[in-house]
Amino acid sequence: MLAIYDDTKAIRHALAFEAALASAQAHVGLIDEQSASRIVDVCANLDIPPADLADEAAHAGTLAIPLVKRLRTILSAEPVAAAVVHHGTTSQDLADTVTMLQARDAFALINADLERVAKALQALAELYAQTPAAGRTLLQDAQPITFGLRVAQWLAGVDSARRYLKTAADNALAIQFGGAVGTRAGLDGKGHDVALKLAEILGLKLAVAPWHSRREHVVALAAALGLAIGSLGKIGRDVSLLAQNALAEVAEPAVEGRGGSSAMPHKRNPTACQVALSAAIRAPALVASVMAAMTQELERGLGGWQAEAPVLADLFMLAGGSAEAIATMLEGLEVHPQAMARNLESAGIGDDVGEAVAIVNAILQHRKDV
Amino acid sequence: MLAIYDDTKAIRHALAFEAALASAQAHVGLIDEQSASRIVDVCANLDIPPADLADEAAHAGTLAIPLVKRLRTILSAEPVAAAVVHHGTTSQDLADTVTMLQARDAFALINADLERVAKALQALAELYAQTPAAGRTLLQDAQPITFGLRVAQWLAGVDSARRYLKTAADNALAIQFGGAVGTRAGLDGKGHDVALKLAEILGLKLAVAPWHSRREHVVALAAALGLAIGSLGKIGRDVSLLAQNALAEVAEPAVEGRGGSSAMPHKRNPTACQVALSAAIRAPALVASVMAAMTQELERGLGGWQAEAPVLADLFMLAGGSAEAIATMLEGLEVHPQAMARNLESAGIGDDVGEAVAIVNAILQHRKDV
Amino acid sequence: MLAIYDDTKAIRHALAFEAALASAQAHVGLIDEQSASRIVDVCANLDIPPADLADEAAHAGTLAIPLVKRLRTILSAEPVAAAVVHHGTTSQDLADTVTMLQARDAFALINADLERVAKALQALAELYAQTPAAGRTLLQDAQPITFGLRVAQWLAGVDSARRYLKTAADNALAIQFGGAVGTRAGLDGKGHDVALKLAEILGLKLAVAPWHSRREHVVALAAALGLAIGSLGKIGRDVSLLAQNALAEVAEPAVEGRGGSSAMPHKRNPTACQVALSAAIRAPALVASVMAAMTQELERGLGGWQAEAPVLADLFMLAGGSAEAIATMLEGLEVHPQAMARNLESAGIGDDVGEAVAIVNAILQHRKDV
Amino acid sequence: MLAIYDDTKAIRHALAFEAALASAQAHVGLIDEQSASRIVDVCANLDIPPADLADEAAHAGTLAIPLVKRLRTILSAEPVAAAVVHHGTTSQDLADTVTMLQARDAFALINADLERVAKALQALAELYAQTPAAGRTLLQDAQPITFGLRVAQWLAGVDSARRYLKTAADNALAIQFGGAVGTRAGLDGKGHDVALKLAEILGLKLAVAPWHSRREHVVALAAALGLAIGSLGKIGRDVSLLAQNALAEVAEPAVEGRGGSSAMPHKRNPTACQVALSAAIRAPALVASVMAAMTQELERGLGGWQAEAPVLADLFMLAGGSAEAIATMLEGLEVHPQAMARNLESAGIGDDVGEAVAIVNAILQHRKDV
Repeated sequence: MLAIYDDTKAIRHALAFEAALASAQAHVGLIDEQSASRIVDVCANLDIPPADLADEAAHAGTLAIPLVKRLRTILSAEPVAAAVVHHGTTSQDLADTVTMLQARDAFALINADLERVAKALQALAELYAQTPAAGRTLLQDAQPITFGLRVAQWLAGVDSARRYLKTAADNALAIQFGGAVGTRAGLDGKGHDVALKLAEILGLKLAVAPWHSRREHVVALAAALGLAIGSLGKIGRDVSLLAQNALAEVAEPAVEGRGGSSAMPHKRNPTACQVALSAAIRAPALVASVMAAMTQELERGLGGWQAEAPVLADLFMLAGGSAEAIATMLEGLEVHPQAMARNLESAGIGDDVGEAVAIVNAILQHRKDV
Repeated sequence: MLAIYDDTKAIRHALAFEAALASAQAHVGLIDEQSASRIVDVCANLDIPPADLADEAAHAGTLAIPLVKRLRTILSAEPVAAAVVHHGTTSQDLADTVTMLQARDAFALINADLERVAKALQALAELYAQTPAAGRTLLQDAQPITFGLRVAQWLAGVDSARRYLKTAADNALAIQFGGAVGTRAGLDGKGHDVALKLAEILGLKLAVAPWHSRREHVVALAAALGLAIGSLGKIGRDVSLLAQNALAEVAEPAVEGRGGSSAMPHKRNPTACQVALSAAIRAPALVASVMAAMTQELERGLGGWQAEAPVLADLFMLAGGSAEAIATMLEGLEVHPQAMARNLESAGIGDDVGEAVAIVNAILQHRKDV
Repeated sequence: MLAIYDDTKAIRHALAFEAALASAQAHVGLIDEQSASRIVDVCANLDIPPADLADEAAHAGTLAIPLVKRLRTILSAEPVAAAVVHHGTTSQDLADTVTMLQARDAFALINADLERVAKALQALAELYAQTPAAGRTLLQDAQPITFGLRVAQWLAGVDSARRYLKTAADNALAIQFGGAVGTRAGLDGKGHDVALKLAEILGLKLAVAPWHSRREHVVALAAALGLAIGSLGKIGRDVSLLAQNALAEVAEPAVEGRGGSSAMPHKRNPTACQVALSAAIRAPALVASVMAAMTQELERGLGGWQAEAPVLADLFMLAGGSAEAIATMLEGLEVHPQAMARNLESAGIGDDVGEAVAIVNAILQHRKDV
Repeated sequence: MLAIYDDTKAIRHALAFEAALASAQAHVGLIDEQSASRIVDVCANLDIPPADLADEAAHAGTLAIPLVKRLRTILSAEPVAAAVVHHGTTSQDLADTVTMLQARDAFALINADLERVAKALQALAELYAQTPAAGRTLLQDAQPITFGLRVAQWLAGVDSARRYLKTAADNALAIQFGGAVGTRAGLDGKGHDVALKLAEILGLKLAVAPWHSRREHVVALAAALGLAIGSLGKIGRDVSLLAQNALAEVAEPAVEGRGGSSAMPHKRNPTACQVALSAAIRAPALVASVMAAMTQELERGLGGWQAEAPVLADLFMLAGGSAEAIATMLEGLEVHPQAMARNLESAGIGDDVGEAVAIVNAILQHRKDV
């Protein structure tokens, strides 16, 4: 995930946008093929030190200006090509498209880790479907369940989160291409065709219209990431509670060099739970800030959309870190049915778990049906 | 919306839950028909002063305890019926189901107002599809658009929000019924059948399993309300900017007694925009707090789900207030094409709006296709 | 706290503002004494059904307009007095001042409950200063502490919160009085004198200047409430963890009718912890929404300040509920040193607590010194 | 600010902590001077590639473990020194102290930029104290003010924010030193003396007691940063509104290569306002997440404190970026009194500004008095 949000990678995406734009405009006959292929060529081979560009972008208030300036400088010997670089587009087209190229890659990575989580949970739910354990409510012993029920509920939560995330990604992972005010002006009426080709080349969708100051799908994507992080945080919460020494019903896997304590070498800390809980504390506020940015002024807003990209990056990184940590933890989770049995007996709440098993089965059956 | 979240109404929902539960249990043969019908009867006729019950519920930490106590007291002459009141269920079953009964009604109301908003926007987008106006970016004059394009973009935002809201409501508007630890224990294995019937009577869905500490659909519903509020807030932001005296491109409708100023009687304040913007400031944080509550402990959490219901009520009230205000504003919006033309000319940015019209048409066509 | 935020009480505050304003203006010779005393008289005796006024205020977009209209109607036989009602002031002056009158009362109530909390914690810290217990980090047994140290740390947190709250209240609890654009125009240059007298009568401070769109003290007050709620939530978190059946180191006091479970009558639920944790989940987002409202437009903003009052009310109610619940819990907290000793022994982490005692003493000594 | 939060710098702080700890322990006679000076020496000269350490820290769940391991490896030929590295301390001591060393430097930088902001505002307030302008409420022309009054109000807001920030920094900028469970055990009862010396060497304060899971000052610091960002955002909001072409009352300074538009080279965008508004959108949620982390479990929590450091870094970076941008903008702000006069005349609201001037003077006088 760090690689996806690396600055060098972001610049590559930005250059890919400029290259694809030139290709798309040549494809519809707006610019000549030769200029387009020169631009593509330059973009493919240009290496810009991220730190340099960051300073210039901060100064200009946008990445596009210094980037385009460099391209034009390189192409200065070919004035026709230089002139059509970045033609008909605007800084935000570039910035939003880069954000979505990053999001596409990040989504793929998270999706894979969430699938690992789901697979591990399915296996645990099946294995411990009938393993009695004390159910606890308001942190007090309550009535018997099975450990498999607890796990199946985690699974149902993760499955829902994955569905919401997929829907939001399907909507959000689109190019931005509208020009200064979202009209695709200055393209001889071929703006839609350019947009179609641009989306095709970059492997993103084309929205019904430019979305410079209409951010609902960005917000929905952020919210779905928050949901996923919350679903994983719930697992982290429960595992960390069950791993308390006095319960000892589960333990995170022993990993060389992980979960130790600098002061107490004997300890095995619930490190993956910590990652998931920490992410779950941070994510809701991040979602809120993307949502707070929705009231963007007129055709392209001031401050709103600029606030989104770093927050979205944070959300993807938190989700990625959490999904990876929880997946690895679940794949090696130590489960102690004897401790569960002992705690259940201490609780004195009986051990009839027939109905719990029925609910495990309902959840697992529903997964097959969907 | 205030009526939906009235305390008296909440108590009616709670009594409806208890009545439906008795009916459902009689339906599957768990309790006798006569007891069930006595319970239904008592629930239908009981009037409890909300203030009394609020005090008792605050003391007990849950509404269910004082409510059930009262039902049992009333039924004390009929011990069989008294004994089966609230059978096999738990406080949170009642509380969550009441929350969803309220949410169902609130969703219907908001949906209707969002439909009014969409209808008004569609009409405005068609009427002003070709009306030139200055497009503005970063609050600076930029390039020409049409007023219809601005409106069509608002419409696309509202349409998206409505779709997200519908999806979330379809998932979330379900009964809660799981008993103490979500197993539906103590019902002779007929828990699922009782749940099915209970859902049918109350007109809510039945989720794949109890969701006491698995709150993803509640969170998704909150997020979708936040999205809707944000989409309306965007309209409020733009209208209030366009209504500035120096632009005067639109004005909120003149309504007797509304939008006045106690200090400056001549003013016409953008009151609906104020409502929408105020809601848009508050909503993201409310969504965040529901999301922050996701890491609920084990089978039923401590503090998490108790935090949700008042926040969800706030979100529905903000969404309802905003949708109603914006709908009414749009239905009577004063639009001043001459001012738009004058401002466009002052901006000196040309007046070619052919591409803007194409995008209006694309958005309106897409609405037909969906 | 509910009484403080009762609608009837809010209207009383609003009438008190109008009465004090008339008195203050008479005091400086701006209006005649007779008109002032008629206005004071009418304000003292007017009863307006809150529901009526709420509808009118919602329609007008402000409470001031319908309220002033009613006063003028009542005074219609005395045109001189009628004319000077609400003279030189604006809706927001009234609204902000009412908010601060409520906040003053709410602050007093919370302060008293926080003092109860501190007193109970001081007593517990002293009593159990030397009582060994297992210290736990990352939810794992770690090294020995004393129960008194844990309590002393809670106390240090509550003390800090009280100090921040006092500072913020000292700054924020001020009248608003600036007229339409915060200049106190139309008062013959006597605006400052009127403001001074108005503040004196109402028992609030006078800020250096009107603060219609400068909200830093409102935000600081909200943040300090959030801090207090967080400090109480920390106590709720720890007590609920220590009250788990497997630890049983403390228990909330047994209160008739409180903390029971509708499904499991034998349970003693940590109800006060639930109240405190639920408040701690909701508060941060509420603070964020007041902070998000800071970028208010020009002299008086659109949506920003209107968002604050209900949020501030929520924060006061959450803080009040939490402080009361935690105070009552701590005053009757069941502490089980034997269980602590038993768990410490199981942990096998020794029992040397000399340094822990030293830190308890340092915290308690610091309290005396401050 | 980026330099302050550079990873290399963070490692330097971590090494400084270990070095100072050894010195402090030697100072009180807990370890021998020779070992201490070897540790100091090694820490001063060790260069660890941040990327390497990041991977190891992520794996271990804490920075301290791989860092200490490296120090011990380097010192392996001197077993006495190697054994006393990191003696009596814990990962969180190190992590929290590093966070506060960063915060100290960041606070100094922000404070300097806020002073620039205040100085520029003071000058503008004096210069334009009597310059008439249209006051605007709810984004509508209202009554006359002076431009100096608007500026003086910004100044009052920034002054308040600086005071809150100073108070919070005074409280928060302290070392963390408590060992595993906050008792300073294992130091022969000299824990307090070590802590005193450690604080002295590092140039931070010593809190009354370790604050591992008592985070009120961290939260207060975050909230004060949010306040500062909000006060700057208010300036950004107003300047961007006043810079609209139709008003043209102010403009951001023309800076070569800044504020341009890739699509519209003639535009001068309000880039500093954008920075400030974007920060103001993101900050409240970040504050909320630090506040949400307050309910940390027992002696050292799971997820809560780990969530704070990156959020605090974000807040400092947003505050720093905003303060720098607004300072530079204000120092070169273009002010157009003629445009103000023209707009005031168009508004038809008179031009009596005597009372506005009085309030400017009151604010400026108050600055002198404080």
